[in-house]
Amino acid sequence: MERSRVNLLIPGPTPLPPEVREAMSTAMVDHRGAEFGRILRDVLAGVAQIFQTTSPVLMFAASGTGGLEAAVVNVLSPGDRVLALSCGMFGDRFASVARAFGAEVIVEEAPWGCGIDPQQVTEALRRHARVRAVLVTHNETSTGVTNDLRGIAEAVRGSGALLLVDAVSSLGAIDLRADAWGLDVVVTGSQKALMGPPGGVFISVSPNAWEASKVARMPRHYFSFAMARDQLASEAAYTPFTPAIPVISALAVSIPMILREGLPARFAHHRRLAEMTRTGVQALGLELFAQARWASETVTAVRVPAGIDGKELRARLREQFGVAVAGGQGALDGRIFRIGHMGYVQEAQIVEALAALERVLAELGHRRSPVSSR
Amino acid sequence: MERSRVNLLIPGPTPLPPEVREAMSTAMVDHRGAEFGRILRDVLAGVAQIFQTTSPVLMFAASGTGGLEAAVVNVLSPGDRVLALSCGMFGDRFASVARAFGAEVIVEEAPWGCGIDPQQVTEALRRHARVRAVLVTHNETSTGVTNDLRGIAEAVRGSGALLLVDAVSSLGAIDLRADAWGLDVVVTGSQKALMGPPGGVFISVSPNAWEASKVARMPRHYFSFAMARDQLASEAAYTPFTPAIPVISALAVSIPMILREGLPARFAHHRRLAEMTRTGVQALGLELFAQARWASETVTAVRVPAGIDGKELRARLREQFGVAVAGGQGALDGRIFRIGHMGYVQEAQIVEALAALERVLAELGHRRSPVSSR
Repeated sequence: MERSRVNLLIPGPTPLPPEVREAMSTAMVDHRGAEFGRILRDVLAGVAQIFQTTSPVLMFAASGTGGLEAAVVNVLSPGDRVLALSCGMFGDRFASVARAFGAEVIVEEAPWGCGIDPQQVTEALRRHARVRAVLVTHNETSTGVTNDLRGIAEAVRGSGALLLVDAVSSLGAIDLRADAWGLDVVVTGSQKALMGPPGGVFISVSPNAWEASKVARMPRHYFSFAMARDQLASEAAYTPFTPAIPVISALAVSIPMILREGLPARFAHHRRLAEMTRTGVQALGLELFAQARWASETVTAVRVPAGIDGKELRARLREQFGVAVAGGQGALDGRIFRIGHMGYVQEAQIVEALAALERVLAELGHRRSPVSSR
Repeated sequence: MERSRVNLLIPGPTPLPPEVREAMSTAMVDHRGAEFGRILRDVLAGVAQIFQTTSPVLMFAASGTGGLEAAVVNVLSPGDRVLALSCGMFGDRFASVARAFGAEVIVEEAPWGCGIDPQQVTEALRRHARVRAVLVTHNETSTGVTNDLRGIAEAVRGSGALLLVDAVSSLGAIDLRADAWGLDVVVTGSQKALMGPPGGVFISVSPNAWEASKVARMPRHYFSFAMARDQLASEAAYTPFTPAIPVISALAVSIPMILREGLPARFAHHRRLAEMTRTGVQALGLELFAQARWASETVTAVRVPAGIDGKELRARLREQFGVAVAGGQGALDGRIFRIGHMGYVQEAQIVEALAALERVLAELGHRRSPVSSR
């Protein structure tokens, strides 16, 4: 199967618009030159609009998890108590990062397939004194669940805790209002709904988080917010360390595309793709993994039907039809598969994937249960 | 000035071969798929040949400084004493990273423009007990100096200290034998002599360094060697976190190019470019910053002549001739300019830059001193 023919429906990296791919192959630039400074600042200003913040946005050459580490180490000290809200693998990972750097981590969980109830957050904050920060995953990619970030932010407000948000697989696809909702640190990646290649993270930092960073004592160097901010303001060099130039060249094209279309239209695009996907797989007699109330607009997790080998299902989709979907992670390995529909994914790709899925299910002997019995 | 016409002679990012640029714009791939696993492993095996090691090589999505952080945090504990050898800005930076994570850092310096004498290392290790690691910059980009890494490794051998090497601007251009010389952790970047875009670091880890990592207590998560090694060996996912796919696609083309040409030929290429550059600038009556004994094969630092504004010199080179060279960093700002000649840089580019330099110097009223007086 030739690579460019793959119908890439994993929850990131996502397919890229042709003009974005082309931008990556432009010549290398002098990253200390004025032209590059303009490009980088334009990209960051554009991304700030998507974060819906007036605070400056920082960029680091790293993948999403590096961004989570940056969020933690810049605003916390060893021994600080944090409340980690987790309903899947990425929630657990955020907790692990905080633990690795010496935070006292209290994990508040929801069953996989569900989101975190804001009421649960209110109660947890009442139960545990001195919580310095709450960690939350906006969109839990491993289960196809979107948390009620606005509700959670309301629950955290007034508690004195900072709110750190993993928005890696949501920003640009699902509404997120950093300023209006009072989100202190929000992390996203270049390779999901922002329609760029992997290799860059963007982080918005609220005035409260900047204050916290002044007293935070977790060790940091590469991911220092202060260094990144200071360099951005300098005339001679815009990032403390060599930036991921192809990522920036790509986003210099994709971010204006997103802003021209407008955030409401982008959110509607993702909602439409998600609804098509959910309706389609249910029509094939498959069950969704996430409860409807929390179903994600960027990734749909589907239960592998009894008697079917999930690995075989995905291999056939890939080999016979060029459709790449993701498997389950951790405890969900083999039990679910996941269809990503974020960024530049088009409706035709979903239609094609559903048709392929129908064929492969039939080959594997899956009998569609009558819809009335469900 | 159209970007693609720039004669990019900064000490990285470097110009890329057309086929490497093209590779970056290929479609995104499923980074959990078998095809990607093969590509990544081939790239890492190729890079290991350039490190001249049989130990596995790890990759992280980050820039060079992120790689230095990885080297430090995986093998050291807070309070560990390290000897940081510094003869420029990048040596100082390596020391700062270790300090940020709680090492007790003893800095052993050489004057800028000189390298570290191995004898100095022997004496420093005699003077200071319990040195857990020695940090060294193989090629100091800020001053155009290459350290005698082999000699320094001999001085460290038998002391019980680990040797951590910043080879960001040397690997692939200057001989470095990780196994034969007993280098414990060696870090390089994708964007210098490896002829890729920025955004990836490669790290070789010796058996001794692996042992040290088992007891090292500096906090780490994103840059964990153990996680990277374990994932690489897994069947289902090859990197703990989303890899920098365009960097890997690019290096999947450039590394075989390097290996086909052969390391001796690559080293000779860099030596030739460096000699052309040094001879050329001296013929224009300019002075080299680095002492001849330590002159780098990948970057030449040149003193800005008295009475000439270094910033103006560089601006004219760039605006009138499309030649991008770098300025001085830190204390050398305005006092030197630096010509990078690494990776895909061709001899014609150096000839063109020297011709442009001659014109700009004449415009700025520089009088060439008679060679006999020097």
